[in-house]
Amino acid sequence: MTSIGIIGSEGRMGVALAAAISEAGQRSCGVDRGGNIVRLASESDVLVDFSSPAALEATLDACVAAKKPIVIGTTGLEERHHYLIDDAAQDIAVLQTGNTSLGVTLLAHLVREAAARLDPEYDIEIVEMHHRNKVDAPSGTALLLGQAAAEGRRIDLAKCSERGRDGVTGVRGHGKIGFASLRGGTVAGDHDVIFAGPEEMITLSHRAENRMIFARGAVRAALWLMNQKPDRYTMPQVLGLSER
Amino acid sequence: MTSIGIIGSEGRMGVALAAAISEAGQRSCGVDRGGNIVRLASESDVLVDFSSPAALEATLDACVAAKKPIVIGTTGLEERHHYLIDDAAQDIAVLQTGNTSLGVTLLAHLVREAAARLDPEYDIEIVEMHHRNKVDAPSGTALLLGQAAAEGRRIDLAKCSERGRDGVTGVRGHGKIGFASLRGGTVAGDHDVIFAGPEEMITLSHRAENRMIFARGAVRAALWLMNQKPDRYTMPQVLGLSER
Amino acid sequence: MTSIGIIGSEGRMGVALAAAISEAGQRSCGVDRGGNIVRLASESDVLVDFSSPAALEATLDACVAAKKPIVIGTTGLEERHHYLIDDAAQDIAVLQTGNTSLGVTLLAHLVREAAARLDPEYDIEIVEMHHRNKVDAPSGTALLLGQAAAEGRRIDLAKCSERGRDGVTGVRGHGKIGFASLRGGTVAGDHDVIFAGPEEMITLSHRAENRMIFARGAVRAALWLMNQKPDRYTMPQVLGLSER
Amino acid sequence: MTSIGIIGSEGRMGVALAAAISEAGQRSCGVDRGGNIVRLASESDVLVDFSSPAALEATLDACVAAKKPIVIGTTGLEERHHYLIDDAAQDIAVLQTGNTSLGVTLLAHLVREAAARLDPEYDIEIVEMHHRNKVDAPSGTALLLGQAAAEGRRIDLAKCSERGRDGVTGVRGHGKIGFASLRGGTVAGDHDVIFAGPEEMITLSHRAENRMIFARGAVRAALWLMNQKPDRYTMPQVLGLSER
Repeated sequence: MTSIGIIGSEGRMGVALAAAISEAGQRSCGVDRGGNIVRLASESDVLVDFSSPAALEATLDACVAAKKPIVIGTTGLEERHHYLIDDAAQDIAVLQTGNTSLGVTLLAHLVREAAARLDPEYDIEIVEMHHRNKVDAPSGTALLLGQAAAEGRRIDLAKCSERGRDGVTGVRGHGKIGFASLRGGTVAGDHDVIFAGPEEMITLSHRAENRMIFARGAVRAALWLMNQKPDRYTMPQVLGLSER
Repeated sequence: MTSIGIIGSEGRMGVALAAAISEAGQRSCGVDRGGNIVRLASESDVLVDFSSPAALEATLDACVAAKKPIVIGTTGLEERHHYLIDDAAQDIAVLQTGNTSLGVTLLAHLVREAAARLDPEYDIEIVEMHHRNKVDAPSGTALLLGQAAAEGRRIDLAKCSERGRDGVTGVRGHGKIGFASLRGGTVAGDHDVIFAGPEEMITLSHRAENRMIFARGAVRAALWLMNQKPDRYTMPQVLGLSER
Repeated sequence: MTSIGIIGSEGRMGVALAAAISEAGQRSCGVDRGGNIVRLASESDVLVDFSSPAALEATLDACVAAKKPIVIGTTGLEERHHYLIDDAAQDIAVLQTGNTSLGVTLLAHLVREAAARLDPEYDIEIVEMHHRNKVDAPSGTALLLGQAAAEGRRIDLAKCSERGRDGVTGVRGHGKIGFASLRGGTVAGDHDVIFAGPEEMITLSHRAENRMIFARGAVRAALWLMNQKPDRYTMPQVLGLSER
Repeated sequence: MTSIGIIGSEGRMGVALAAAISEAGQRSCGVDRGGNIVRLASESDVLVDFSSPAALEATLDACVAAKKPIVIGTTGLEERHHYLIDDAAQDIAVLQTGNTSLGVTLLAHLVREAAARLDPEYDIEIVEMHHRNKVDAPSGTALLLGQAAAEGRRIDLAKCSERGRDGVTGVRGHGKIGFASLRGGTVAGDHDVIFAGPEEMITLSHRAENRMIFARGAVRAALWLMNQKPDRYTMPQVLGLSER
């Protein structure tokens, strides 16, 4: 049985992670804010962190000292956090990602493939819906999907996004990737990527029923990461979708 | 057989109207820009106008002189056009509308009903998709549906719209009606009105395959209007959905 | 504070009901299989029963003796159970229903209205999706929606259903109501009612995220029922959608 | 300018093909039933056949004699027709397919990829909607998509299809691929392939607005085929999606 250490075990994702670890037949241990990360790292086979960027440096130090791999799902990372991760990845296996869902990871792969194959005359639109309390738009996942579309088309997402359409917009910009955000109720997360061409439309969609899918994907990533040598990894690699 | 006169018979809607009139087993006649509207009015039993606001005054004068009812589907009307219509409606039956589709007319009715019945904790979102060449957002039909929702809820749409969400938006405003617009390909017109509440979602949708639905609705309105006494009418009345 | 008694408090719906009652700021009490229903009835202001038909007679007797109203959401009722309910309704207020969700109740109302207004040339199709463990098709809710459509159209659902299409079916029967059932994953319940006409389509949809919506609707029905005189009631009456 | 010969030029697909050829800036010529196929083959650079199986042998003979490639979109082919095609493919390039739409071809590719990557615990459901006059269910395209899913999963579609669900079905069969068919209105063709897993759902969809997409895909295939050496080809090869 593998022992998976949870950083931030009392948060909502921490609770979901413990459930997902149990569901996978593994053992979980954890610390919350201010807990002893060094001891957790030494007692775990692999760690999962969905806490906050503030504790990242101490967490990485503990993992490197204990030679334990770590999955980082924390959001709000800045450039300096990525340097810390790159450094740690010299000594241990690290997987950092903005979305641990297996379904979203696969969807991004399909979006990249579709964007690469379809002519640019197929207009790409991304629409997402989340619960009423989400404070930013578009969602991080919508941007991740937009990035996959831009990669497939070999264009720069920053230069071709069309967001917040309202009023007299003129005709749609050629080659643009449009984003729209819906908010309401308790929706856990819906994403549609639309390729609208001459008299036909292809839509690739993902719907999350609740946050357990993020916890399950993180557990699968953790178990996969235990068998990797020191380096920095991504979610598509867990599914065998890419080399890097 | 009823003779239906088409103002603007060579435009795209004019051609669709002629097809819809023929499909309904009636006879069409028409004039294009600069044609003799007075003669058309005298020869027709009822008229349909999808041309431009510029010719509206002459058209109404001709209809009043000939005592013939008229369906006006022209867009871009200003306040003075509405005064002209009110004046003409003293003498003839006039139906003016921004959308002649029977399906959209019914959908607006259902949206009004749903908005009236559901608690305000059900967040209302309206999302529409149109072809890449549409130059304004949201669509006129999306606004018409938003108006129906606002009426059902007895609120003022102008004060509760949330449009063009992008960036750090904060939590969704309580009681707001959100709008989002997708553009791409050759889509004739999709509209979804979403009521997102606690753990459930009701969605009322309309999808147009092409412009024939607007022509067919206009023909049905014209045939209905022939039996009405002088007054100003609306599409819901054609379907028996309202008194006014 | 109202005291709501739960028959079958340890089942999945019983647990959801307790949560919904607490959420509504009310007090719950309950008994499970073999518990003392007579005492529960005397201690509660109103009762909710999602248990099994087997205990229905004893439950109704206890409610009548204590003069307490009851909401019955139990499925699998037979004709004799309905007679028992009719009898009890001479003395107490009883609301029996196959679906306590407010959203589904409203949707059925909108479906009836749409079916009544649209010409029969608008083909009606009902498609539902549920988790892989559901053993019957179509879902009870799909049939309830089909019944609403048939009522709107003043036809007999039993005579106009088209189910399980497969193979060489011939052209669609005029005036039929089609049903299709999808099964997979953990889907709590999606229902679409489609009205497909000439070049346009209206779709009325409901999506449940989990079973809490049924518990919440039952609590709302219970609170409403407390103020009614002895009679038999339906969910649409709770929402003010019908007289009966 | 390439000259594309249309077999069956007066049928609905023939008319659409002529429009698509003109749109692509090429020249079309054609014969209808009983026309001189030998002359058409000698005057064309490549041929497209959406007529009937009856004329296939003569058509292939003419193409082989004139050394001209041919795209065959005719439906209802039997085993002997496939032998004739294999024979002809010794001498000329032949592309035979049940669906010439580029969008459907790409969708099938994405479905195969998704099915190969996702665990079998993701239940696959395919639902399609077509106009009321379609006489068979599921659609040929739904079966083509099911075949792609089965290939991705390395299972035999014939042994794992679940069609026409109705009544007491029991729990969903593990590893099955479900099919459901909706019929109504004038819908040109909608297809959804759903992968429903634990608390998440991926849906890959295609929507056709009209038959022009089949004509355009056939023209693109014809232009591609002109540069191929004698052999039998498939639509995925036209899009560079497969070797074979």
